Amino acid sequence: MSDTLPGGRPAAVETPAPADPRLDRLSLNQWTTRGWTLEQAVDGCVRHGIRSIGLWREKVAEHGPAAAARLVADAGLRVSSLCRGGFLTGDDGNLDDNRAAVDEAAALGAACLVLVVGGLPGVVPGGSPGGGLSRDLALARERVARALDVLAPYAGERGVRLALEPLHPMYCADRAVLSTLAQALDLADRHPVEQVGVVVDTFHVWWDPDVLAQIARAGDRIASYQVSDFLVPLPADVLLARGMMGDGVIDFGPLTAAVRAAGYRGDVEVEIFNADVWAADPDEVVATMKRRFVTEVPPM
Amino acid sequence: MSDTLPGGRPAAVETPAPADPRLDRLSLNQWTTRGWTLEQAVDGCVRHGIRSIGLWREKVAEHGPAAAARLVADAGLRVSSLCRGGFLTGDDGNLDDNRAAVDEAAALGAACLVLVVGGLPGVVPGGSPGGGLSRDLALARERVARALDVLAPYAGERGVRLALEPLHPMYCADRAVLSTLAQALDLADRHPVEQVGVVVDTFHVWWDPDVLAQIARAGDRIASYQVSDFLVPLPADVLLARGMMGDGVIDFGPLTAAVRAAGYRGDVEVEIFNADVWAADPDEVVATMKRRFVTEVPPM
Repeated sequence: MSDTLPGGRPAAVETPAPADPRLDRLSLNQWTTRGWTLEQAVDGCVRHGIRSIGLWREKVAEHGPAAAARLVADAGLRVSSLCRGGFLTGDDGNLDDNRAAVDEAAALGAACLVLVVGGLPGVVPGGSPGGGLSRDLALARERVARALDVLAPYAGERGVRLALEPLHPMYCADRAVLSTLAQALDLADRHPVEQVGVVVDTFHVWWDPDVLAQIARAGDRIASYQVSDFLVPLPADVLLARGMMGDGVIDFGPLTAAVRAAGYRGDVEVEIFNADVWAADPDEVVATMKRRFVTEVPPM
Repeated sequence: MSDTLPGGRPAAVETPAPADPRLDRLSLNQWTTRGWTLEQAVDGCVRHGIRSIGLWREKVAEHGPAAAARLVADAGLRVSSLCRGGFLTGDDGNLDDNRAAVDEAAALGAACLVLVVGGLPGVVPGGSPGGGLSRDLALARERVARALDVLAPYAGERGVRLALEPLHPMYCADRAVLSTLAQALDLADRHPVEQVGVVVDTFHVWWDPDVLAQIARAGDRIASYQVSDFLVPLPADVLLARGMMGDGVIDFGPLTAAVRAAGYRGDVEVEIFNADVWAADPDEVVATMKRRFVTEVPPM
């Protein structure tokens, strides 16, 4: 591992203090500014006074985990999460790739490794079911539990916390058979709290009649709190239905208060998949994100 | 009220026995063959040996409830449901229209009046939130409970059973803040069982990790069982994501077995909102529906 980073960036960058202390725990999930390289995203965080970043494996791979870790650490940023492991519902549980993801999260010092557990076997994310479709939802869920039995101790040995992310039920078939916070907690509770936590993502859970009770139940199982809005009408590609806070229908008040009351003290990530956001100037996106974070999300 | 129906149809039509006893409880929801008038749908049921029909208020209005009731009764059909009342989350609870829907259900002798409770105040179904958007989900849900307090006894006095339909969470903002069977049952349990039941619609509930337990809990609260499949990828208009049984990702086995075990003895409706189905020849749609009902849905 070299001390010199790609592009000849200096190894230490002073991080200016955020202008508003309410931004102290704001984290930019890298996919929100998807057009930026890792280096651009790190620079963008520094420039905008953001102290934490949620990384994606695809972007980390541009440098490799060790150099990426250095890049982020030298900029004084925390790594609020690494996205993502998972897709555990196939025949083989996808274990090798998930072990690699755990190793990367360890190298990066990420607060957690987010797991998107996968949909029904044979369904490609966003695609049509192929000939290998299994409609056995119980089996798919059992496979997640079995894979977690292997991955949780592996993560624990490396000081990595897995974060089970329940996804909105509209993604149940193709992305995650884990659909509610209650279900995620039932699964997490079988493992030590430092090994397996959950993600509370407003976009995925806002509709759930049981969500406030489940956030309270979660307590220190909450490994990540992510905020983005739910747009209506849904766009043609429902994966891109996330919006900037304030552009959709979510009331961030009760959810944020519940997460705070549950004792969560980590960063708050903004993760937005949205074609318009991706087409915009990333610096403007970050500026809007900061502004909306203050106006729409109550203090943590 | 006249004995002569529009179009001069004879007042009594002999209903041939279904060829397969497994079709005895199959009901055609009228919206599946949306291009048909009420009269055409009734004739179609008779022609195809289907003994039950789920009616829609828009179609019933073509004749008025009394004449429609006669048309259906003379064909020897049961009315498995009337769709739909609801949209209770506005300022006024939409009570007048719902009382009218109850009256229509009474006139038709419908087994239940399906209630789609409505989304967040200010969000038009399928549309964008207007200036009147309220993000107060708890308030919207409270309004449903309050409206039901008025409508349940009104329905009870007229021998009509209201059927609360939890809708898939992707419709929470614009169509129904009632998103799970557990939530529907919590609401229903505050009223006599003959006044308020629930709809179990496979499309809406298949993903729910708690669905089998909630169906068991429901017992004789189940007022309607509806089957259609969940398509992936979702079409651009998610309202039209329903498919013919076998075309999507739902395993009808466990759900149907649970509904049977819960003691449900009513009809099984096929309700499909789908642009391709609506564009097809309705007679072919009904023929396919009968075939798939036998091959994909276990005997009730």
